[in-house]
Amino acid sequence: MYSIGIDIGGTNTDMGLVRNDGTIIARSNIPTNAYTELEPYIRDIMGCIAKLMDDNNVEKIEGIGIGAPNGNFYTGCVDNAPNLTIKGVLNFEQEMHKYMDVPVVLSNDANAAAYGEMVYGGAKDLDNFIMFTLGTGVGSGIVLDGKLVHGSTGGAGELGHCILIPNGRQCSCGRKGCLETYTSARGIVQTYCELKGIPVTADIDSKMIGDLANQGDPIALKTWETVADQLGLAMANSVTFSAPQAIFLMGGPTKVGEPLLKPLQKAFDKYLLNIFAGSCQIRMSQLKANEVAILGAAALIKMKTNN
Amino acid sequence: MYSIGIDIGGTNTDMGLVRNDGTIIARSNIPTNAYTELEPYIRDIMGCIAKLMDDNNVEKIEGIGIGAPNGNFYTGCVDNAPNLTIKGVLNFEQEMHKYMDVPVVLSNDANAAAYGEMVYGGAKDLDNFIMFTLGTGVGSGIVLDGKLVHGSTGGAGELGHCILIPNGRQCSCGRKGCLETYTSARGIVQTYCELKGIPVTADIDSKMIGDLANQGDPIALKTWETVADQLGLAMANSVTFSAPQAIFLMGGPTKVGEPLLKPLQKAFDKYLLNIFAGSCQIRMSQLKANEVAILGAAALIKMKTNN
Repeated sequence: MYSIGIDIGGTNTDMGLVRNDGTIIARSNIPTNAYTELEPYIRDIMGCIAKLMDDNNVEKIEGIGIGAPNGNFYTGCVDNAPNLTIKGVLNFEQEMHKYMDVPVVLSNDANAAAYGEMVYGGAKDLDNFIMFTLGTGVGSGIVLDGKLVHGSTGGAGELGHCILIPNGRQCSCGRKGCLETYTSARGIVQTYCELKGIPVTADIDSKMIGDLANQGDPIALKTWETVADQLGLAMANSVTFSAPQAIFLMGGPTKVGEPLLKPLQKAFDKYLLNIFAGSCQIRMSQLKANEVAILGAAALIKMKTNN
Repeated sequence: MYSIGIDIGGTNTDMGLVRNDGTIIARSNIPTNAYTELEPYIRDIMGCIAKLMDDNNVEKIEGIGIGAPNGNFYTGCVDNAPNLTIKGVLNFEQEMHKYMDVPVVLSNDANAAAYGEMVYGGAKDLDNFIMFTLGTGVGSGIVLDGKLVHGSTGGAGELGHCILIPNGRQCSCGRKGCLETYTSARGIVQTYCELKGIPVTADIDSKMIGDLANQGDPIALKTWETVADQLGLAMANSVTFSAPQAIFLMGGPTKVGEPLLKPLQKAFDKYLLNIFAGSCQIRMSQLKANEVAILGAAALIKMKTNN
């Protein structure tokens, strides 16, 4: 059986034809920012899907899963996503059903990543875990009893906006001290620059700080220790909520390896409430960076077909 | 239909015969701390239950629900509760089944309170909410999709031990800065004494600080504003997890009324991530203080009989 995974970004819309074993058979993409209206955008997406199926002799798909900013699981809409050139509340499900009568499921990208990990990745054996995605921002997806936590609004699982340090760093959300301001790629750069005593500059990125740390640079190492302490605290706090079996990490900054992961385990153990000691592992995502968005989106369809 | 609710405390074990409409028909109790072995303790509990049923001409009950420190929903055991004189892992379910073949369900008291609110109290119309209980400690119970969140260990929903202020006040759990150290009855007294510049003393309790605030005492008012700010932050953080429809409050300190509730709403609104604005109400528990423990315990049985 096959399904379609669609990853909607502000610049590009990536699509993939995904086989049930988690293999992406073929890909396609269109420029999201070339569109200002939903109808032509969906028409072109559905054209790509038809071609992907046709080229690969696939006559039937299980459904279409979509990872999108502000993607709402309950309504099948993308709700006023600030970084899309198509404005308003966009009813993807309804519009796609004009072309193809298959289930259409939307969620945000971090939720999709978490679900993808369960269906195709390193969480196949788990039904209770949390995924933290570190990147431009910090996202999260929470799986409880084998189901994604959407909450009453559809917007649950925003742990990047848990306030970690009251009155801390200014966050783009308007509040202060969110986890994201410390452990996103940008937050990590800020910490490095603060420790080095230099202004924050666009010349430095988290990858460079990772390389420096792996070369033994003491300020870079201190940066990752600081990030590990902050992330470890946030992870331990999240355990008090749902007592997960594991916390998964993915995203660019997690690729640094030891300089982050060693102090992270230490911080997590230090901050974990004693009744949870030993009950929750730290694991790395087992999905490839260039596949997770499409696989995660495709995995979403399993929510409709398995329930 | 009837069920039995049992509230196990370190000093007393309270039992109640509960009718399906949430009326406690009759009560009974035994001194928990008179026992050091499980068998005689359960024998005496079951004797009380038999008498409660007999006295009220009840021939059949739906089950026995138990709210207990370290009560484990999955195993039916109380696991090494530090404040009980009966030590070890206590298999209540197994022991009770020697006397009566009905479902036996255990959970901790905050979870029971949350579930009781849904079955008998102010959350009958909700399937997604969080209960914070303020008392000697701070407990919480999380209901998601109409089910209590137990997590992988059975110990989920310990939001009183979310670290609110990194490196903050020393908590009895061994870590620092837990919500409980600020918004428990004891934490509130500490804040008042700090603001007043006096040593923490056993002569002051949170009820007195409440009375002082309602009389207009500025330091007492400032105390509740501080507590409101801390609790509001913790509540807003919990919304990022499960996007509940409401957060319920119960326990002695919440009885102060306006001095807490007015600044609490303000703090909650201030700290709530914008995407959740207006989606989550603050509500007070609708169960009576002297009934919640038994009703909550009795409600737990609905988890087994409804699923």
